Amino acid sequence: MNEAPIQSVALLVVDMQDTFLKAIPDAQTLLARCAFATEAAQLLGIRTFFTAQVPDKLGPVSPRLTSLLPEEAREAHLFPKTAFSALQAPGMMEVLSNHQIDHLILAGIETPICVYQTAIDAANEEMAMTLLSDGIGGRRRDDRQPVIDSLARIGCHVLPAEAVFYSILGGADHPSFKAFTALVKKYGDTAPQQS
Amino acid sequence: MNEAPIQSVALLVVDMQDTFLKAIPDAQTLLARCAFATEAAQLLGIRTFFTAQVPDKLGPVSPRLTSLLPEEAREAHLFPKTAFSALQAPGMMEVLSNHQIDHLILAGIETPICVYQTAIDAANEEMAMTLLSDGIGGRRRDDRQPVIDSLARIGCHVLPAEAVFYSILGGADHPSFKAFTALVKKYGDTAPQQS
Amino acid sequence: MNEAPIQSVALLVVDMQDTFLKAIPDAQTLLARCAFATEAAQLLGIRTFFTAQVPDKLGPVSPRLTSLLPEEAREAHLFPKTAFSALQAPGMMEVLSNHQIDHLILAGIETPICVYQTAIDAANEEMAMTLLSDGIGGRRRDDRQPVIDSLARIGCHVLPAEAVFYSILGGADHPSFKAFTALVKKYGDTAPQQS
Amino acid sequence: MNEAPIQSVALLVVDMQDTFLKAIPDAQTLLARCAFATEAAQLLGIRTFFTAQVPDKLGPVSPRLTSLLPEEAREAHLFPKTAFSALQAPGMMEVLSNHQIDHLILAGIETPICVYQTAIDAANEEMAMTLLSDGIGGRRRDDRQPVIDSLARIGCHVLPAEAVFYSILGGADHPSFKAFTALVKKYGDTAPQQS
Repeated sequence: MNEAPIQSVALLVVDMQDTFLKAIPDAQTLLARCAFATEAAQLLGIRTFFTAQVPDKLGPVSPRLTSLLPEEAREAHLFPKTAFSALQAPGMMEVLSNHQIDHLILAGIETPICVYQTAIDAANEEMAMTLLSDGIGGRRRDDRQPVIDSLARIGCHVLPAEAVFYSILGGADHPSFKAFTALVKKYGDTAPQQS
Repeated sequence: MNEAPIQSVALLVVDMQDTFLKAIPDAQTLLARCAFATEAAQLLGIRTFFTAQVPDKLGPVSPRLTSLLPEEAREAHLFPKTAFSALQAPGMMEVLSNHQIDHLILAGIETPICVYQTAIDAANEEMAMTLLSDGIGGRRRDDRQPVIDSLARIGCHVLPAEAVFYSILGGADHPSFKAFTALVKKYGDTAPQQS
Repeated sequence: MNEAPIQSVALLVVDMQDTFLKAIPDAQTLLARCAFATEAAQLLGIRTFFTAQVPDKLGPVSPRLTSLLPEEAREAHLFPKTAFSALQAPGMMEVLSNHQIDHLILAGIETPICVYQTAIDAANEEMAMTLLSDGIGGRRRDDRQPVIDSLARIGCHVLPAEAVFYSILGGADHPSFKAFTALVKKYGDTAPQQS
Repeated sequence: MNEAPIQSVALLVVDMQDTFLKAIPDAQTLLARCAFATEAAQLLGIRTFFTAQVPDKLGPVSPRLTSLLPEEAREAHLFPKTAFSALQAPGMMEVLSNHQIDHLILAGIETPICVYQTAIDAANEEMAMTLLSDGIGGRRRDDRQPVIDSLARIGCHVLPAEAVFYSILGGADHPSFKAFTALVKKYGDTAPQQS
């Protein structure tokens, strides 16, 4: 991560809507990790995009996440869609292309459906892709690891959010180090993980 | 999955006979996942084949599965065999070849025996192969992951059924989306998985 | 496994001595799986070799295993050694070479020490190697998987014993099928595995 | 490991400071495994280096580890740093280069941060890298395996300390075998691992 210019990287948070979250085990932990990634991206100047699956029917992206973007930016960074892949949301590829984004940090739900299809599309578009291992989730626990392993085999990076953002910082001399450390502490109260 | 034309894909369900199922932990969950895959394949127009290991002695494929095929199609889609590999069932390769099937979605039992040997044969025949991670099972729990990892290393895809079928759908605009969502719900009552 | 001529395959059981076994969790299960592999190899005509680490000091290979070889063959198939790698036991490479063995099925203890170094040596000798996932063990549980993954990455096959031997059989028509099935049942009473 | 000349290998123990250790589950086990690796390296003539993250603020490397080096050598083998990667500690690359070190055995904390970035840097420098699976740790348990898998995919070796050091010994004839066995026993009292 620490070699790509930050301008070419974007965080893409897929379908974090309450309709889906309520069916997911540990949904609050997942929401907190996505909020951490979103706040970290804001801090480090990484563009952040949200998608919503058929929001007219299924409701909006969790306000806990969208409220982390500056109010005037929310609309431009929110993409409704009917396709499962986030890259097929109307306008998404144009925006990524306009900003010369060639590396996506991917979070959201569900791992075997919209996250998987987004990653496959990104690979087909020859974009680099980093899945946040602590930022993706799904209803069926045992479906998770086979999907992650499949995506890793086609070249997708799979890393926890801290590995990604600490790599971008690079060291304690980074001007945002203190603010980032505060973020890590803030989200350290997240419910304990299962080992 | 979403790039292969649907006509060239087949679902192959191996040896789901009661004799074997009764020795397998979580057999009811496995049977339900195979039924889900079979119903999904029917819905999406994916040809489905069953094999039975020496059925004269060991009994038929579970009627819960075969009853999901239209009655007039059952016989033509059921292959008795003595070899462990499903591809060595008499007539199987001819049928796959006649239908120009070059990608198999594989489910059934047992992972280290008939499923493994079928996947090895498919690799030797240069057919693509997708193992359903939630659709295969065996008596010995710890034997599962080494077999899956071995097959993945020789190019076998390993994905849960939902990842496969949602990829074929591609989005909420697909004409079978509603019916498929109903199927997912129907099989959501399956006994909870172990994480 | 089902493509190598059986004559070129050998089972190599490393250092199954009581001194080491008594320090290993689930030693009785491991001993049973090695006995199963040894009996299966005898049945299928696969040469079987045992090594013992400094047996003058540390005692003999468990008689439960050596007693499975015909009495007159035991001495010629038992290799004492001081090196950790079984392939560095005096006379071992000559015997393997004389019998034109180019594929080793490997079992025994300890996974991170003698098993690991044997597999590394085999890779350096360009011999094929299949680790029996249910036939290897060690004192420290968490040391197991990293070693297996490391060996898999350099081309070592990793499979449970049933996957290996059922592949050699190929089907219910094999003349040894019934006898092998009886063996599987005999060893099915092995203490239940941890999932 | 057993092919690299021992002079070209170094043990690098990253940021084992109490500030970080107190936030880590099983910190005492981790500290013991790093002490084992350090003692083993001393015994076998492998140079050992420690780094400390901003020690003026965050305190020194645990004396349990530094006290294992001869008193006169401690200062020259201890590298304070502000960057997360150990290879960016002032003077580190020069020392490694002067000693013609081209293979690092890596231990310490935290796996997704300083250990990860050190391994990435080593890969970029085309140095060989062996992560000690039992010698690395971090606050968040679930973040561990994705990082290990990511590093393994870019060519990093991942092995437990015993696999590494027993490979360097090669056999019971090695002059340090008895002393090493005593070390293994001394650290065998380490709190039991989780399977």
